[in-house]
Amino acid sequence: MEIIKTLEGMKIAQRRRAGQRVGLVPTMGYLHDGHLSLVEKSLSTCDITVVSIFVNPKQFRPNEDLDTYPVDLKRDIKLLEDLGVAILFLPKNADMYPEGYQTYVQVEKITERLCGKSRPGFFRGVATVVLKLFNTVQPDVAFFGEKDRQQLAVIQKMVQDLNLDIQIEGLPIVRDPDGLASSSRNLYLSPQARQSALCLQEALQLAQRRVAAGETSAHKIRSAMQDVIEAHPDTRVDYISVCDPLQFNELEVIQGKTLIALAVHVGQTRLIDNCLIERI
Amino acid sequence: MEIIKTLEGMKIAQRRRAGQRVGLVPTMGYLHDGHLSLVEKSLSTCDITVVSIFVNPKQFRPNEDLDTYPVDLKRDIKLLEDLGVAILFLPKNADMYPEGYQTYVQVEKITERLCGKSRPGFFRGVATVVLKLFNTVQPDVAFFGEKDRQQLAVIQKMVQDLNLDIQIEGLPIVRDPDGLASSSRNLYLSPQARQSALCLQEALQLAQRRVAAGETSAHKIRSAMQDVIEAHPDTRVDYISVCDPLQFNELEVIQGKTLIALAVHVGQTRLIDNCLIERI
Repeated sequence: MEIIKTLEGMKIAQRRRAGQRVGLVPTMGYLHDGHLSLVEKSLSTCDITVVSIFVNPKQFRPNEDLDTYPVDLKRDIKLLEDLGVAILFLPKNADMYPEGYQTYVQVEKITERLCGKSRPGFFRGVATVVLKLFNTVQPDVAFFGEKDRQQLAVIQKMVQDLNLDIQIEGLPIVRDPDGLASSSRNLYLSPQARQSALCLQEALQLAQRRVAAGETSAHKIRSAMQDVIEAHPDTRVDYISVCDPLQFNELEVIQGKTLIALAVHVGQTRLIDNCLIERI
Repeated sequence: MEIIKTLEGMKIAQRRRAGQRVGLVPTMGYLHDGHLSLVEKSLSTCDITVVSIFVNPKQFRPNEDLDTYPVDLKRDIKLLEDLGVAILFLPKNADMYPEGYQTYVQVEKITERLCGKSRPGFFRGVATVVLKLFNTVQPDVAFFGEKDRQQLAVIQKMVQDLNLDIQIEGLPIVRDPDGLASSSRNLYLSPQARQSALCLQEALQLAQRRVAAGETSAHKIRSAMQDVIEAHPDTRVDYISVCDPLQFNELEVIQGKTLIALAVHVGQTRLIDNCLIERI
């Protein structure tokens, strides 16, 4: 595996590709099974797979966990090498955001809801870094997980609006054996907190059962999910959303394709999860 | 000359290039000698020259001249054909900004001054459309005139910050025989207004003479320029700036490389001009 640490090095590597299909998996490292499913998909469908690891400061607010975000580069390198990844791109913060950096990409409207509402500036940081990675790596296809479904939608919208020639592929949520959606932030959870964290998955399952049984009131679904979460110690709801999966507008009546998404603070750790349902 | 009217058509043409150097001259049409100097530079330094004509609605505010912006496509086509341009790209508004369009590029700080201060949102519109054109045409080099020197700086900053692999070339202001900087908007001027419009060039010349004679007070230069402009009928200063040419910060003392730039309303028409001076 080639490890490239400069933007210039990545551009030179890109020029060597000669018609080969390049897949990019952008990550913030501390890789889990969700990331690895993206890498495997890229390996099986592209000629060259590039994985980037960059903890992007522009998508953290001052009070968030930038300084404690988990890092284990040695382990990440071993995992990627074992899978057969061609290139690991490890840009430095000083190269990505040199002094005087001042350009940002803003996707409007869909970023005002759910995680965008709770974390102002988050999607601006995400869109900006992803565009920079796209311009540097110049992939044919890039892979993102559906756990961050709003992020996936924002990136798809950006690619479409800015006329980028890149295919965006979203892959299903990967779960740990206990059902918790795989996330680098799961590391933060104590054994007790991990028990409480199962409330996200439980709330989604309850919602799915209720809708399957005929419930059409989005309000009642949200309320039932809230009850599930509150029954677990040390939890605090950030949002519970029952919305359309394209614009992320909250629904009153559940009909057609519907996204159920939530963010919950478990102790100090903010976790997200979601599922897509279809009521015909 | 091939005329391409769709984004998809332009992308297909781009794929045919096979290692050839592509130059792009983005314009809003109603071509003048300033545009043509950019086209000639591209023709003489690139294998394929693409000229785009698109009157970008996102860089006009509601009270500005979008609806009256001059158009003469037949004349533009003839001019470009005579020069030997390979491709004229004529995207449609509905393709550039389809319903639900919501992604914008914002270059901060340097866009808050001069024209950015007078025309809020202007540079956001410019940066966004230029990035879209870059992504669609994928040029190796793009050409812009120094009359819009702040625009040139914004685009250079965007290219640098977003890691685009495109060279940006700025070319000197072209002037009509009477000294007025070439601009599509000069069409708006009545013969009397055109006389008044010469005040921009006169004010810049006075500033250059005063600095050459030893004046170092930016305030005194601005004030003398203001007097020149006010001596002409039907003029109204939008801004007069004596600033550093990188960050566009207003100066107190003129030293080193200095940008003198101004925007003046002559009747209903807003005109801009500038010059770069160096005091050693």
